[in-house]
Amino acid sequence: MKIRVYYEDTDMGGIVYHTNYIKYCERARSERFFQAGVNPGEGNCHFVVKDINAHYLAPAKFGDLLHVKVKVLECKKVSCVVRHEITRDDKMLFWADITLAYVCNGKPTKIHDEALSFLLSEKESVSSSLE
Amino acid sequence: MKIRVYYEDTDMGGIVYHTNYIKYCERARSERFFQAGVNPGEGNCHFVVKDINAHYLAPAKFGDLLHVKVKVLECKKVSCVVRHEITRDDKMLFWADITLAYVCNGKPTKIHDEALSFLLSEKESVSSSLE
Amino acid sequence: MKIRVYYEDTDMGGIVYHTNYIKYCERARSERFFQAGVNPGEGNCHFVVKDINAHYLAPAKFGDLLHVKVKVLECKKVSCVVRHEITRDDKMLFWADITLAYVCNGKPTKIHDEALSFLLSEKESVSSSLE
Amino acid sequence: MKIRVYYEDTDMGGIVYHTNYIKYCERARSERFFQAGVNPGEGNCHFVVKDINAHYLAPAKFGDLLHVKVKVLECKKVSCVVRHEITRDDKMLFWADITLAYVCNGKPTKIHDEALSFLLSEKESVSSSLE
Repeated sequence: MKIRVYYEDTDMGGIVYHTNYIKYCERARSERFFQAGVNPGEGNCHFVVKDINAHYLAPAKFGDLLHVKVKVLECKKVSCVVRHEITRDDKMLFWADITLAYVCNGKPTKIHDEALSFLLSEKESVSSSLE
Repeated sequence: MKIRVYYEDTDMGGIVYHTNYIKYCERARSERFFQAGVNPGEGNCHFVVKDINAHYLAPAKFGDLLHVKVKVLECKKVSCVVRHEITRDDKMLFWADITLAYVCNGKPTKIHDEALSFLLSEKESVSSSLE
Repeated sequence: MKIRVYYEDTDMGGIVYHTNYIKYCERARSERFFQAGVNPGEGNCHFVVKDINAHYLAPAKFGDLLHVKVKVLECKKVSCVVRHEITRDDKMLFWADITLAYVCNGKPTKIHDEALSFLLSEKESVSSSLE
Repeated sequence: MKIRVYYEDTDMGGIVYHTNYIKYCERARSERFFQAGVNPGEGNCHFVVKDINAHYLAPAKFGDLLHVKVKVLECKKVSCVVRHEITRDDKMLFWADITLAYVCNGKPTKIHDEALSFLLSEKESVSSSLE
């Protein structure tokens, strides 16, 4: 998956608005699940963002083609830390570690087996990319 | 209600991104309901946008204070047409007629009495404003 | 081009938030320009949205793969009307006619030749699709 | 300043989409500048987000009235760390430390005097609130 920067993504500084990088991260995470045929949630259960640790190194511009890499760093019973790296032509523009917690009806819950297996497999394939 | 234009609202043209005006319209509609203490939906029922007829007359910029006027033009059993006008210092920047349909579980449904009464009262108070 | 519906695109009704369809339309328009290698703007000149006439027929949901078709209906000196159709598995979900005006430093301006030729060619290729 | 949660802010989980909290933070920061009559940027200079360290404690829902507190933690020559706290009825929902860098034409630059003085004054008024 490549993410194109559209007009909607820019701000008056002429560059991508800062929260949009974090949206790109989620698009990439979701796309991994879709492509693997794994449902990220079931019924009233789904992943929510718990913590974000994000770093902006260089700006992206209108028309850029960005690549987003996703890598699971660590998984516990109810949460996982996922690293996201956004690059353009191999130049790192942004990276973020995002902690996702699994909740059912708003309460922290053990991640369901299929999702956990998938997430752990993503941990091993360190170089997996969405390009 | 006054709506301030923030950085998030602008695009690389330095002006408010076009879909954001339509978001402002919905903020204004919702705010009317909140202020009147009327719930726009019940259970699995809520209003959805059916048609938009929008006209951009002049751009809004970062830091602008915009006013949004909302006026119900017409209500039928399952839908209403609502006019929205966005002005800055009495200059009209944008107007849109938006048709809202009431749906329950995705199916067109008769608007519930409380909402309908409220909407009809909004029709009479033609000059009501969210400023 | 296929557009995937991500979590960011949904609202609490569980369906795609209404202004996002209009964003998809612009993504598709921009992508046509990018793929043709035509720059939609030059210096302080670019296209702005003048009028939107949009119709919502059926909702899109999280995980859907949508197709957006773009077709130029009519071009005058300073503006063009473009039809956009969003489908899922050949079912029409949304269509909109959007009038774009070309402006330089905020003033209506004659569309530059390269863009005009490109737009007129899009008029002929009625069945062109972004899939 | 109070921020109302509108339909546009929610996702299909029925709660505020995670990047929107970060947008609220920026609205609050900008509003502090507007109210103080201080221009956050000059010409081609403006603040950009460098790092985000964000923590989600509890969800916000449609119709909620949120309060955003902004407090400058530390300022250096070209950057400042700003703490943002989002509460509803005194319950903390979210907090984030965001590092802002001042750039001119994309290059890190000494923060201009007026903005720096203002930012330092925000450091002292620890309990300042945007309510």
